[in-house]
Amino acid sequence: MYQVLKTDGRAKRAELKTVHGTIQTPVFMNVGTVAAIKGAVSTMDLKDIGTQVELSNTYHLHVRTGDKLIKEMGGLHKFMNWDRPILTDSGGFQVFSLAGLRKIKEEGVTFNSHIDGRKIFMGPEESMQIQSNLGSTIAMAFDECPPAKAEKSYITNSVNRTTRWLERCKKEMARLNALPDTVNPHQLLFGINQGAVYTDVRIEHAKRISEMDLDGYAVGGLAVGESHEEMYHVLDETVPYLPQNKPTYLMGVGTPANILEGVERGIDFFDCVYPSRNGRHGHVYTKFGKINLFNAKYEKDDRPIEEGCGCPACRNYSRAYIRHLMKAKEMLGMRFCVLHNLYFYNHLMEDIRGAIEAGNYHAFKEERLDLMKTYDQK
Amino acid sequence: MYQVLKTDGRAKRAELKTVHGTIQTPVFMNVGTVAAIKGAVSTMDLKDIGTQVELSNTYHLHVRTGDKLIKEMGGLHKFMNWDRPILTDSGGFQVFSLAGLRKIKEEGVTFNSHIDGRKIFMGPEESMQIQSNLGSTIAMAFDECPPAKAEKSYITNSVNRTTRWLERCKKEMARLNALPDTVNPHQLLFGINQGAVYTDVRIEHAKRISEMDLDGYAVGGLAVGESHEEMYHVLDETVPYLPQNKPTYLMGVGTPANILEGVERGIDFFDCVYPSRNGRHGHVYTKFGKINLFNAKYEKDDRPIEEGCGCPACRNYSRAYIRHLMKAKEMLGMRFCVLHNLYFYNHLMEDIRGAIEAGNYHAFKEERLDLMKTYDQK
Repeated sequence: MYQVLKTDGRAKRAELKTVHGTIQTPVFMNVGTVAAIKGAVSTMDLKDIGTQVELSNTYHLHVRTGDKLIKEMGGLHKFMNWDRPILTDSGGFQVFSLAGLRKIKEEGVTFNSHIDGRKIFMGPEESMQIQSNLGSTIAMAFDECPPAKAEKSYITNSVNRTTRWLERCKKEMARLNALPDTVNPHQLLFGINQGAVYTDVRIEHAKRISEMDLDGYAVGGLAVGESHEEMYHVLDETVPYLPQNKPTYLMGVGTPANILEGVERGIDFFDCVYPSRNGRHGHVYTKFGKINLFNAKYEKDDRPIEEGCGCPACRNYSRAYIRHLMKAKEMLGMRFCVLHNLYFYNHLMEDIRGAIEAGNYHAFKEERLDLMKTYDQK
Repeated sequence: MYQVLKTDGRAKRAELKTVHGTIQTPVFMNVGTVAAIKGAVSTMDLKDIGTQVELSNTYHLHVRTGDKLIKEMGGLHKFMNWDRPILTDSGGFQVFSLAGLRKIKEEGVTFNSHIDGRKIFMGPEESMQIQSNLGSTIAMAFDECPPAKAEKSYITNSVNRTTRWLERCKKEMARLNALPDTVNPHQLLFGINQGAVYTDVRIEHAKRISEMDLDGYAVGGLAVGESHEEMYHVLDETVPYLPQNKPTYLMGVGTPANILEGVERGIDFFDCVYPSRNGRHGHVYTKFGKINLFNAKYEKDDRPIEEGCGCPACRNYSRAYIRHLMKAKEMLGMRFCVLHNLYFYNHLMEDIRGAIEAGNYHAFKEERLDLMKTYDQK
């Protein structure tokens, strides 16, 4: 199911076969929170820009439209008309970051919906049930996402509970996959490593969950306030203790530089809201660094956002036109910037895969990190 | 240049050859106020949904991005990457409806920009100069748009001034078209008939401007508060006094029913913000009437907005999904609804042209008006 095709140092070029097609890794998943990519980007567009995996948020779909409705409509794939892989998060991160007053117990978490304030309970079983209703390709385990700066004793207790929750997730997912009316009987389950920046807690946890023979392993609880160096250090120390014959996913990360560094440390899967969020603010990526289209110097710039880029915006429109749209607050400007940024990330991953295949990943990474600084230095 | 291919009663099936291609009429122009269709619809999308003519607003482009910048960028066609015809309005309607404190004199109008309040002067020459900088295919004459309920004496004075302004527009456009650095040396000029609901004033004005041998004639100042019956009456009385060998344009109109009635009264060109504005509110057109996707009954409706519709939304997505997007305030929902509505209007015009060619326009119109009531009757 998961096969490493080539390694280059710790960097892995692999593929994961799923019922919704084969994922070539390293891969960047495109975030479509409520079954839609923000910036008026559709699943037809995602095919056009080379997206392999779409990521939807369990919490958002549960509190608003409802996973039961989506199950009735045939599951998320049919609902949003996307036949490639979908990963759903567990809802855990949103429960701990978005929801109102919450209470954590051994069974799970009681919280208030950020939409209408109503009280909702979610534990490992509920998270699996919701994700099963959505019928995603890959479900994520329900974990606690403790505050970035929590005390070590809090983190240790939290990680132990996350392990117990993971056991319950695995059991519940097996039960759900066997039900006669399940949307996707082959739904995969990835576990999540936690432990904040305490590498001894991370390593201990990685060893424990590795024994559970899950379909993949994520590193969670990073990019929540620690420095990039701390994040890279955690990856250096922890990833070697996760199974090498399973895909590895660095959750919620990150900038192009973060991804280049993550790949070198053995990560297969990434996801982040940066390309769509930045795009909606007119910040667009190029090989030479990120540019802000609101800058006056692009007013009469008739070049595309990035010369040679094959995205739908760059193939047809100039910086000057897209800047005009952004200044006029036209949605179309956001759509172009988001399309470009997602294409940029997808294309970066293609280059990354090529470099690992060619066995020169480290040199490639250094060159790209260097190039990226071009605009900043000017 | 303009050729009537077939008539059916007063309905005309014609074509207008321009430097940007031939327009088949009756036609509905798609409104892209600031060189962009609201709802994240691009010029690439317009080709996909069969748009023949894009309409941009002179006032908006002048007060914000600036027509001089657009001229420097090679004109509106190049700026927005659209090689088919563009019609620009004169700015008159916006000056009289959007701008702040204004003062009308024989020379023109002084007003405050609705963006930053700065004082701007616009008269016939300025309007032609701006439209020449934009380089549209068809420019509209600068006219006064008097309040719907103005006294007859006010209307008569206003119409006389509009005639004098039209003479100045014609002269200025001829001068601009002959300049060596003009964007489009073949820019066409349409005059505008005014007179509110006073048919004697309308007829007198129609006769006077008909003698000026312009490239086309619009009926302006309608759909501003009078009843549909009053509008149809004005068309019944006035259109016969406009040249039959020139295209006729009913400005800012309207609903599908208005268009069906307008065509029967000899109109070639239409434009209206309804399809895009309604789309952004989840109101979508079908042959059987307009539906509101927010209605709970569409929650689990897995049919497309209109069965058999070939628009990008209907080809790929269900009412239930688009309703979900609208409820979640995702731009993508608006994009789908606007694409559908514009396709619906473009497709309606195709059917209208077919019916005139077949010589059964009246029966066709009655049938479509009848069908449209289906949803309302239920």
